[in-house]
Amino acid sequence: MHSLPISAIKLVDTLSKLPGIGRKTAQRLVFHLLSEKASLSYDLSDALRAIKTDIINCEICHGITEENPCSICCDGKRDHNLLCVVESPYDVFVLEKLNSFKGRYHILGGVLSPLDGIGPDDLNLSSLLDRIEEGMEVIIATNPSVEGETTALYIGKILSEANVSISKLARGVPVGSDLEYVDDATLIRAMEGRVSI
Amino acid sequence: MHSLPISAIKLVDTLSKLPGIGRKTAQRLVFHLLSEKASLSYDLSDALRAIKTDIINCEICHGITEENPCSICCDGKRDHNLLCVVESPYDVFVLEKLNSFKGRYHILGGVLSPLDGIGPDDLNLSSLLDRIEEGMEVIIATNPSVEGETTALYIGKILSEANVSISKLARGVPVGSDLEYVDDATLIRAMEGRVSI
Repeated sequence: MHSLPISAIKLVDTLSKLPGIGRKTAQRLVFHLLSEKASLSYDLSDALRAIKTDIINCEICHGITEENPCSICCDGKRDHNLLCVVESPYDVFVLEKLNSFKGRYHILGGVLSPLDGIGPDDLNLSSLLDRIEEGMEVIIATNPSVEGETTALYIGKILSEANVSISKLARGVPVGSDLEYVDDATLIRAMEGRVSI
Repeated sequence: MHSLPISAIKLVDTLSKLPGIGRKTAQRLVFHLLSEKASLSYDLSDALRAIKTDIINCEICHGITEENPCSICCDGKRDHNLLCVVESPYDVFVLEKLNSFKGRYHILGGVLSPLDGIGPDDLNLSSLLDRIEEGMEVIIATNPSVEGETTALYIGKILSEANVSISKLARGVPVGSDLEYVDDATLIRAMEGRVSI
């Protein structure tokens, strides 16, 4: 890197910290930015600063928002008896894209992971319990990973005494997939969870 | 995107303008930055601004530098009779990594491309002619594309009256490749340019 100006090296170093961007990709991006108009770099610089100064966490659901509470929590048309518990704000974004869920969300901010030192106190669980009302349906939509399943079980347990119905996303073969390529664990779940037609 | 804060949408839009970064990758990057400490976004923001405020073009070779003239042009140990003509500053970076070329560079800032409206006047050709001295060796290292080859031919022509030796990079089979996978045009060039052993 001896032939690169210091500020270019610094940008390569910082870009390389992002997921999916290695040093080579970072170098290519820096040279692209150098060859483009200054406004592209400045726009990017301003937008990066803005996401950290303008975006806060909703005090109700812990989702990302520019106004507190967020638009989903404030939306009177949403079903207040339907609560979907997810790991991260990205999951809300993924589910909202479907335009099919009409309840509200609660973001845990992670999953239980003893190896990483993440216990129940590190998740937004007390605020979840505060939101629970009798007769509510709680959908636990953590990722189908070991940590996600463990977290779902844990939440199921602490909610077991509240008078709510608890569900989780169906496990099974993905739509459009080929049985040949579906992994064993998923197939076993799909067999166990078979539905009558 | 209706569930994303405006500043996040803006960053997704701007990141998507970079080569190799689609909307999905941009969204993933934005959520990663939101979940990380603010310092990462701020560092990136500062570094992006710095490359445009601190980096200028060397008045001699047109390469990128923070000091004018650049360190390569100022380097007294480099052979002043050996000049390598390249398309972009990135090519200098690629060649310098080899640590084997001991001459200097001249950056054209593009290649002749009539379809894109790029003619001889848009390239750094007059400053190239100013640098030419009798007895010099000029290596034309444009890319082995149609435009690159055309540009190399053009430069060869305008330098033909100067008393310099002109060469270009050897075309042939890449080291470590397999003849089976080498394209026809490269194989033909490799046969034509065969060297005695």
